[in-house]
Amino acid sequence: MANTNPARGMRDFLPVDVRRREYVIGIIKEVYESYGFEPLETPAVENLETLTGKYGEEGNQLIFKILKRGEHEKSGEADLALRYDLTVPLARVVANHKNDLPKFFKRYQIQPVWRADRPARGRFREFYQCDVDAIGSNSMIVEAELCAAVSEILLRLGFKNYEIRINHREILRGMLNAAGINEQFHIEALTIIDKKDKTGIEKMNDDLNHLTKMVKGALTLKDLFLKILERQLQIIEQSEIEPFSGFEEARIALANSINNASLDYLSGFIRNSNNGVSEIRNILALVSGTSAAGNIKVDLSLARGLSYYTGAIFEINVPDLAGSLGGGGRYDGLIGMFGKEQIPACGFSLGLERILVVMDERGMFPAELQNASADVLVTVWNGETISESLELATDLRAQGLRVLVYPEADKLGKQFKYASSINVPFVAILGDEERAEGLVALKNMQTGEQKTISRNEVAETIKIHKQV
Amino acid sequence: MANTNPARGMRDFLPVDVRRREYVIGIIKEVYESYGFEPLETPAVENLETLTGKYGEEGNQLIFKILKRGEHEKSGEADLALRYDLTVPLARVVANHKNDLPKFFKRYQIQPVWRADRPARGRFREFYQCDVDAIGSNSMIVEAELCAAVSEILLRLGFKNYEIRINHREILRGMLNAAGINEQFHIEALTIIDKKDKTGIEKMNDDLNHLTKMVKGALTLKDLFLKILERQLQIIEQSEIEPFSGFEEARIALANSINNASLDYLSGFIRNSNNGVSEIRNILALVSGTSAAGNIKVDLSLARGLSYYTGAIFEINVPDLAGSLGGGGRYDGLIGMFGKEQIPACGFSLGLERILVVMDERGMFPAELQNASADVLVTVWNGETISESLELATDLRAQGLRVLVYPEADKLGKQFKYASSINVPFVAILGDEERAEGLVALKNMQTGEQKTISRNEVAETIKIHKQV
Repeated sequence: MANTNPARGMRDFLPVDVRRREYVIGIIKEVYESYGFEPLETPAVENLETLTGKYGEEGNQLIFKILKRGEHEKSGEADLALRYDLTVPLARVVANHKNDLPKFFKRYQIQPVWRADRPARGRFREFYQCDVDAIGSNSMIVEAELCAAVSEILLRLGFKNYEIRINHREILRGMLNAAGINEQFHIEALTIIDKKDKTGIEKMNDDLNHLTKMVKGALTLKDLFLKILERQLQIIEQSEIEPFSGFEEARIALANSINNASLDYLSGFIRNSNNGVSEIRNILALVSGTSAAGNIKVDLSLARGLSYYTGAIFEINVPDLAGSLGGGGRYDGLIGMFGKEQIPACGFSLGLERILVVMDERGMFPAELQNASADVLVTVWNGETISESLELATDLRAQGLRVLVYPEADKLGKQFKYASSINVPFVAILGDEERAEGLVALKNMQTGEQKTISRNEVAETIKIHKQV
Repeated sequence: MANTNPARGMRDFLPVDVRRREYVIGIIKEVYESYGFEPLETPAVENLETLTGKYGEEGNQLIFKILKRGEHEKSGEADLALRYDLTVPLARVVANHKNDLPKFFKRYQIQPVWRADRPARGRFREFYQCDVDAIGSNSMIVEAELCAAVSEILLRLGFKNYEIRINHREILRGMLNAAGINEQFHIEALTIIDKKDKTGIEKMNDDLNHLTKMVKGALTLKDLFLKILERQLQIIEQSEIEPFSGFEEARIALANSINNASLDYLSGFIRNSNNGVSEIRNILALVSGTSAAGNIKVDLSLARGLSYYTGAIFEINVPDLAGSLGGGGRYDGLIGMFGKEQIPACGFSLGLERILVVMDERGMFPAELQNASADVLVTVWNGETISESLELATDLRAQGLRVLVYPEADKLGKQFKYASSINVPFVAILGDEERAEGLVALKNMQTGEQKTISRNEVAETIKIHKQV
């Protein structure tokens, strides 16, 4: 027998999967559109040279490469490759369409990418990225609007206790310098700090000590993080409300005092003025009138793994979940990679697959997504009356219903059994009597109740049931 | 400078392109859903062995093959390949999920496929297929519903004078036999007949003569087609209405008489009873109460190139366009290819790229798709008042508008110039006076008119304009 599984690390999406994915993607799109972000799509396949060297040595290994065609196939050489992320294609498009794109190009892109990673639980070789980027402006309005948009998406998906953690690469640099960690170690130090949530703060401390061959510097950083945490807990304890209580104003005020306390404490640590601190304060002020107010949290220990960030960085977390639902930041050096000029940019990437896993585990999908393929199944009485079944179906579809016609003139019992097996909530029967009088027998498959009503009442009856 | 073009034969879709594609795909989905078809998605990448041998020798050449990874990369061998069509993956999924799928599985799938064809005008290496298939039933209800659904899609997209041509492989076999063309030549004969629309009927005649080394048989077939055409023209001339006039009932009646005349004439030609004829008559009767009535046309010279069809075949044509917008038919032997049992199936494939080209040439896209990225641009008065601009934007978004905030505290003139360059219809200004009084100055960018209104009137004013 032929192997009928999808390729390793890839997935088939049956109807219920597709509906859930489209539900989440639909909300993401709608919110991004409301912020004036526009859709972009790029091909799944890029010239190999476009991708190589852009993702580091490890990334190069994980690119799926496509064999040359025709007579060159035998050479074993590759000239094309599968899209690895959505940022490099964006940079290519921005360079290629310089004159067609607005000065401030706000785009979202929701497409699959492919990585030849070792498949694992929750890690696939084909997965969707939902990227949103604002290109062309240095203003913190960009950061504030991104936080607001992402926050709105999470709220609309039904997430309540989420946090958008925020930090800044210049703050991190200031802290590392103040801790006596030399510039040459900064990138490695950031990687160590980034792993802290998994490894623990003691391991971070050890690794930083090992990296810098010093004790003092690293110890100070650990102390700083712990002191700030202590100060935050103090504030929460002194406050009269829970951090995630329903009292909106009090909650926002509390979040603000925690954020300010962190930044104030930091000033004492790094001493000289820091552009990162003022930008973060700026973002916090701008966000205050948006849905992100109260859900944005300064976390001075947030580092983000990628080396290309230059300014503010973000990560989204929900309680009881290791890892993040997405993240982003400002990267002013990357979008210009295919052109001559540097172009400022700031973006966010939501992890669709993780969002879906969390929503599934927590039962966050609306019930109607579980529904059957149709609102009603129209039965076929016998071979001679099929046309009348089709006409009823046409009527009901015109009134906005999803209608299945049973495709064969089977015994009615068999048709009911089928309707029940696929969870269709209603079955319509056009028997001899009903047809003679212009009526329809409509059976509610959940209650078992069957009533004979006039044809033009059918759609209404089903719709009322749908709304309940 | 790096090459910033997409790979050969591939395309980037800028926002206006994506919007048009999504508009068409949205209508296709909505109609298919109303018929109870359910969405399926399969990975872009399949195991190479799943695809090889399924598309003939020519197809094998056009499959994009993916190089093995890691240490095996050097071998130059491929183990994966890009999806070449949506039918083979469907067959694989049906075999793999036998027990999870309903007995009558109605699925649609709208995804890109990749073929290493030589790129040409309208021919791409990455293009979308929109497939719809009903699996598990032999009933002509399936064919009738497919015709109805496709017809409804075309009507909703704004096509008026389309034809769904219909024929049947068993009719073709009967005709070929009656014309004295031996079974062994049937497949080649079908290919010759299929090309008739491009090559002309004389060339068809010559090619059939050459193929069969006979004169009589091929001549009879040419005569048959011409006689039927003559008879159809007679009926149209005798009728008092135009074939595509607006008088719905008369138009449907005319279409019916033309179809019946063709089938009647055929009976005299092939003499013995033919299952194809009765199935076509059945489909025509079933379709009569649906949107396809009057747009479905029996064309006994329709052959379709693919060899796997076993029953009714279809093709959609619009006037003044060579080639079709889509086609399909019954193929009872294909879906079972990965399993042990034959599974009856019938499907339709719409050519998204062709539909888009025709709609573009004929200006069939709704005007709102041409619109700018946003309904209104909120300006920024100065650095101190940005928060208030963001708050206004939040308000307007909550009322369903797409809102851009100008991202920098530039001079107002510059902000207006930008709004004009990206065709935003309204600009909202929050100057010192306006803010003091809770007002907004709203400028209509088309008329140039500017009026100062209260904050809560802004959304309404813009929405009224959108509906006009």
